[in-house]
Amino acid sequence: MNHNDIAGREVADKLLEQIALDVAALKKQNWNPKLVSIKVGDDNAVDLYVRNQKRNADKVGIEFDERHYPGNISVEELTAAITNLNVDPTVTGIILQRPVPEHLPIKALQETIHPLKDVEGMHPKSIGNIVYGELELAPCTAKASVEILKSTGMKLEGLEACVIGHSEIVGKPIAFLLMAEGATVTVCHHMTREVAVHSRRADVVFVAVGKAGLLTGDMIKPGAVVIDIGINVIEDENGKTKVVGDCDYASCQETAGWITPVPGGVGPVTLSILMKNTVTAALRQQQHYHAHFQRAPLEG
Amino acid sequence: MNHNDIAGREVADKLLEQIALDVAALKKQNWNPKLVSIKVGDDNAVDLYVRNQKRNADKVGIEFDERHYPGNISVEELTAAITNLNVDPTVTGIILQRPVPEHLPIKALQETIHPLKDVEGMHPKSIGNIVYGELELAPCTAKASVEILKSTGMKLEGLEACVIGHSEIVGKPIAFLLMAEGATVTVCHHMTREVAVHSRRADVVFVAVGKAGLLTGDMIKPGAVVIDIGINVIEDENGKTKVVGDCDYASCQETAGWITPVPGGVGPVTLSILMKNTVTAALRQQQHYHAHFQRAPLEG
Repeated sequence: MNHNDIAGREVADKLLEQIALDVAALKKQNWNPKLVSIKVGDDNAVDLYVRNQKRNADKVGIEFDERHYPGNISVEELTAAITNLNVDPTVTGIILQRPVPEHLPIKALQETIHPLKDVEGMHPKSIGNIVYGELELAPCTAKASVEILKSTGMKLEGLEACVIGHSEIVGKPIAFLLMAEGATVTVCHHMTREVAVHSRRADVVFVAVGKAGLLTGDMIKPGAVVIDIGINVIEDENGKTKVVGDCDYASCQETAGWITPVPGGVGPVTLSILMKNTVTAALRQQQHYHAHFQRAPLEG
Repeated sequence: MNHNDIAGREVADKLLEQIALDVAALKKQNWNPKLVSIKVGDDNAVDLYVRNQKRNADKVGIEFDERHYPGNISVEELTAAITNLNVDPTVTGIILQRPVPEHLPIKALQETIHPLKDVEGMHPKSIGNIVYGELELAPCTAKASVEILKSTGMKLEGLEACVIGHSEIVGKPIAFLLMAEGATVTVCHHMTREVAVHSRRADVVFVAVGKAGLLTGDMIKPGAVVIDIGINVIEDENGKTKVVGDCDYASCQETAGWITPVPGGVGPVTLSILMKNTVTAALRQQQHYHAHFQRAPLEG
């Protein structure tokens, strides 16, 4: 690890410590957070995600329930399964693992998950709430990226930020999260005339495109923070596959003040944020329950 | 009018022409768009908005129903009134006029309006949908500002845009609308270190802060488009009040290639967009109805 690497594992562990305390507090009130994972069909990558999610849930004491549906399930059947989880009071969070088989409309299915149980922060209502400044429940990767930036101690107010990549669940939510905390944000993408013009001005550059080597050291200003959200599998010079991010690590780490390595940067923090979102969702359901169904005992 | 003024009235009238055709087509199918305006308490500014809205609705053939509630109405009563409108199948659009008296929680009330009837595009779900690239139903002022930009014939793909002001219903939605069409967008606000650094690079500058004279000619590059969304009432040198925007019109129009005057720029287009949103909402309700309640007649 280089001297200016941000250790994602450490940021993640610190978050998990607090989350474990929050889970314990909820359980004391007989309010047990329970996360249900829905896997459709068979996919080795999904199996890996689910294993990692389960391991993190175990660490903090969140019950983790794995459901597995066949790859040829119909959209009606899957919708019914999600609807049943929505109305099940013992389930406090639902995560639909991606990818799903091609015949299933992923966006419509994600909208089926009730916003109060949407621990991935993907429902349009969850996204809209972020725009309105409710930042607690945001898409995990986006929120993890901003948490990592905060771990450097940089002040977000007035910070010049450049976000490369404008996906709905990473680039754009990062932009709103930053705006909400006072940063000046520029969002670049494949139609931007010259990305370097923007990235070179920025105090922090987020890159989430999915293209190895996209961000090079000459595209950032000395001392800038680089948050690398890309995950790319490439072949190295010996023909062995390895996982790298979107930035050319060798040149960027020469220039950057802080940089997240891949793997070991944003990844572990994203998993912690999923657990944090699960706690947030459980708390909101508790508040909703108290506001609508439970009255205070009569006095006297 | 200067040679480089964008005539909002003309853009608005062109939109209204098409909307009138769309309304006529809906009525032919016995699907009558009906917009209900809710006014709470008494406010001269609100009366002016409502008059203008009614005039535009009349022009395109949309039924416009005015409801007036006393200023001391409780949040429960107003919520019930909105809920009744939500379930009334003859009502296709609901607009809650702002400002409302201070004891009423405006955001919670706007969330009470069903997303399918949310013609102002203010519901978190409507905002989230824009982020996901469903651009048809967006907050009126934001959408109007982008329509005006398009009326200049400029290509949005790759355009460098600077948005000054980061409110939830104007600045931020303008940013997503532009991003969705391929522009590179920087959002500036009161915490931005130096706004001019960003505005001077931009091909188009949107200003929506509510501060007269904020944007001066030296802050824009020659030929840039200036879309002025501010509305400020100031006193002129003779002590008479007048309405101006956020840009120093005299200096900006020397430098700008195109500029929207205030009044007569964004304002009239915003009203047309409200009518367009009303049609969009009516169409979505029609689709929803067909998808859920009406089946095709059996063949044979």
